[in-house]
This record gives sequence, C-alpha cells and structure tokens, in this order.
Amino acid sequence: MHQQFEEYLQAIEETLAGYLKVPCEPGRVLEAMGYSAFAGGKRIRPILTLEFTRLCGGDWRKALPFAAGVEMVQTYSLIHDDLPCMDDDDMRRGRPSCHIAYGEATALLAGDGLLTMAFEAIADAQLPPDRVVKAVGILANGIGVQGMIGGQEMDLENEGAISLPLDTVRKTNEKKTSALLSAACRMGVAAAGGTEEQFAAADRFARNFGLAFQVIDDILDLTADAAVLGKPVGSDIANEKVTYPSILGLEGAREYACRYTAEAIDAVGIFAEKDILADYTRGLLDRIR
Amino acid sequence: MHQQFEEYLQAIEETLAGYLKVPCEPGRVLEAMGYSAFAGGKRIRPILTLEFTRLCGGDWRKALPFAAGVEMVQTYSLIHDDLPCMDDDDMRRGRPSCHIAYGEATALLAGDGLLTMAFEAIADAQLPPDRVVKAVGILANGIGVQGMIGGQEMDLENEGAISLPLDTVRKTNEKKTSALLSAACRMGVAAAGGTEEQFAAADRFARNFGLAFQVIDDILDLTADAAVLGKPVGSDIANEKVTYPSILGLEGAREYACRYTAEAIDAVGIFAEKDILADYTRGLLDRIR
Repeated sequence: MHQQFEEYLQAIEETLAGYLKVPCEPGRVLEAMGYSAFAGGKRIRPILTLEFTRLCGGDWRKALPFAAGVEMVQTYSLIHDDLPCMDDDDMRRGRPSCHIAYGEATALLAGDGLLTMAFEAIADAQLPPDRVVKAVGILANGIGVQGMIGGQEMDLENEGAISLPLDTVRKTNEKKTSALLSAACRMGVAAAGGTEEQFAAADRFARNFGLAFQVIDDILDLTADAAVLGKPVGSDIANEKVTYPSILGLEGAREYACRYTAEAIDAVGIFAEKDILADYTRGLLDRIR
Repeated sequence: MHQQFEEYLQAIEETLAGYLKVPCEPGRVLEAMGYSAFAGGKRIRPILTLEFTRLCGGDWRKALPFAAGVEMVQTYSLIHDDLPCMDDDDMRRGRPSCHIAYGEATALLAGDGLLTMAFEAIADAQLPPDRVVKAVGILANGIGVQGMIGGQEMDLENEGAISLPLDTVRKTNEKKTSALLSAACRMGVAAAGGTEEQFAAADRFARNFGLAFQVIDDILDLTADAAVLGKPVGSDIANEKVTYPSILGLEGAREYACRYTAEAIDAVGIFAEKDILADYTRGLLDRIR
C-alpha cells in the first residue's frame, strides 16, 4: 500500500481507538463495539474519505472524525447482518461474530451504538459547521432506506432465489455496497469544502468502484472455494448463491470488473493528484489475474 | 391538552408523515417504520422539543425536523426493545409489535432505518448550520452508550433480579429515559440558538421530568394490573419486576413523583412563558391521584 494510505491507516486506527477504547460504565456494549471494530477490517471506506479530502486540497487530518464515523457504520452493518434473524453467520473474519462472542442482545445494542457514535464523531469534527451538516446528511441518506438499508432489504427479498436477473443483483449491489462507498468519498469532499464537480466525481468513482469491488469479491470467493475443495475453478458456479460469476460466468465477471475499474479510474481524472488512488484501484484487479 | 400543544401535535404528525408515508422501492422496511411510528404514541418528546424552542423565543415550526428526529429515535428504541433477544414483547400499544407484524429481520432494519432517518431529518432543518451540528451532537450523545443504549444495557444486567437498590433503578431510569428526554429538550433550545443558562434549565427540567415520569408509569402499571385482577392495589408489589413502587411502596413512590415533578417545574422558572409546560407537567401527577 502507498505510504500515504499507510499514514491514513494508522491515523484511522488511533482515531477509532480514541472513541472505542475508553472506560465506560457499564462497559460490555462498548467492549463488543470495539471487538467488532478492531477485527482486522481493511478500512477501505475511511481511507477513501481521507483521500478525497486530500484530492480536494483539504487537510485530511481534520476529516478523521468523518472517516471514523464511516468505519463505525460499516462495522454496525456487519454486526446486524450477522445476527440470526439476518444472515445468521457465526464467524466473521476467522473469529466468532459479535453475537456469538457477546450474545444477541449485546450485539444488537453494539450495532445501534456504533451507528449512533458515527454521528457523534462527525458532529465533533473541527470543521466549519456547514461542512459537518453536509456530511451528516450525505451519510444518513446513503445508509438509510433509499441506500444501504434498502440494499439489505433487497437481499432479504432475493434470499433463496436460484437465479436472478443481472439488473437485480446490480441494483442490490449499488444500494448495499456502493451507497456507503459513495457517502464515504463525498464526505471527504465535504470535509474539504469541495465543488459540485468534485462531489459528482467522487460519486461516480464510488459507484463504479463499488460494482468492481463486489464482482472481484465474488470471484475471489469462488476461486478460494474451488481451491479449498480441489475442484476446477468455476465448476460449481451453478450451486453457489446468485453472484456475478453465476450470472456472467467467470470470464464475463472478470471483464465486468475490468470495465468498472476503468470507469472508476476515469472518474478521478479531474484531480491533479489522482495517481495514488488510481494505482490502488488498479491493484484490486491484480487480485483476480 | 393546551391548544399550543395540540398545534404542535398536528404539525408533528404531518412532519413524520412527510418522511414516512412516501413511495419507496423496495418499501417493506419503510412500511414497518411507519407502522410503529403511527401506533398511537403521545409524542411527548417532540412536543417538548418544540416547546423549548418557543420558550427560548425561537420559531417552533423550524424545529419540526428536530422534533421528528426525536420521535423516530423513540420509535426505533421501542422496536429494538421488543425484539425476541431483548424484552421479547409480542404486543405494543394493543397491536402486534413490529417483529410480529413484519418479521424479525424487517423489524431490525426498520429500527436501524428510523435511527438513521432521524439524523437525515435533523441535517435537513432550515436552521443555521451551527445549531444543526449542536443538535446532532446532543442527540447522538444522549442516545449512545453513555445514555440511552447504556440504560438498555443496564436493563439487561438487572434482568431477573428479585431486588435492586433504589440507586440502580434510578441510574437505569436516568440513562434509559431521561437521557433522550434531555436531548429532546436541549435540541429545542439549540433550534432557537439558546443560551447556556437555557440549556442547563432544559437539562434540569428533563432529568427531573424523566424520574417523575417513570415513577408515575410504574404506579399506573401497578394500579391497572390490580384493577384488572380485582386485587387491592399494591398487594402484589413483591411479585412484580423491580420498580419504584416495589422498592419505595406505593405511598413512597407517590411522594417521589411529587418531589421530582416539583423540581421539574422549578427548573423552567427562568422562562417567561413557562405556564403551559408547568401545567402540563403538573397534569402528569393528576393521573396517580
């Protein structure tokens, strides 16, 4: 990872620790929040927030509360997604998921607590208040019923389907993944007091990045499963839940990822210092080559 | 209810409908949000928000998005509280609770959606941005791990206890109920750009109002149960879950309610137009006389 991103990463960890690794009475919910927030996430979304602040000529350190808020939201969504009434996942990143480690009630509250703390962190940013209000609005809109929560709802509706049209998978993807990515990038622009053109570029980058990201993730899941099971890659596409490779085939999915990665890189063409982000985005593709 | 409060009430219903009764694709989560938000709540918290804006000389109509946000938060907390992993309540205000009507997954998302929409509504207010940022911070802090969520956590810890010290019940009450009430009142002050003295008065009012409110609720529960079962009031205090009357006795609880009601009324003494709120607060006590 580029040195600039490494620097972001360290600052993000420190900022999150400042919110989550503090004494609190009672402390079990906060402990559960920290358990999930420090479970080895790659911090892609908060890194994007800080990078867009820098791209727009702002001081990325001042955007750290926005970045922390974005990561808290991402963590909350994973905790609630893993609950028995949703995906019922016992494991997350090789460890027991939050409700297995702390019980369902505490996990529910930990998710609620992270979502709430995200807005507390954002409101606390030392930035002009109009930029903070803009960031609150962007995030709340991106992760609400029209955005991320709407995507989770579509996921519930799609459950158990043997096949789905590409358009449905793509729409779910856009709401469930791209909406938060777009909010993360645009909050970075907001922190810098960016222009309408910069907001539009951040949104276009994020929407395409989100599509590419999901396809690549699906491909990696499939090839990893195949490797573990000792089967030829793609041989059990038909038995998987509906994913991009199951609709497009493995080669089609690779082309799809290429196309949207290129679109994402094209979107940041308006920024003078685009190279780090462009390289990072290109790097995603290398994982499926 | 005083005509002024009736006017608030109508405006609150209209504002909430503007957020919740709109077309949305997919629409089941939004429908569940509306099902719970329009279940006959008395709107005490948002009324307090608007009244404090008026007491501080502000235009209460401009505070409507804050008031709506407060009620969305109250509704979210009830939906999540009723879930099987929490209180497991099948009924709420004489109707099936949200997860009975819509299923657990949709109810979880409906709660998340209302919490998120609260901040979206607040960010949308047509008020100076510094006041909006203040309101976001007040709400997020009041309903987070140090406030309302902390109170729910304490509730989980207290579960199944046969007896508890008064101090523990009171502390749980302060976090679970008073913290949101205080946020509601202070957000009203924030909407008007109030002074530090006015913020402090709003907080003192709400803290005492919250204590009185909970005791009165406990007493009403107890006397209603006794009436239904045809038993003398207070005869089964020992069999109830731990409440103020079970610790203080029925008469002790009544005195407690009187004391905190008087404190709450005293706290709003600094406002010229305090009479409507003082009368309203006094009216709560009449219900247990």
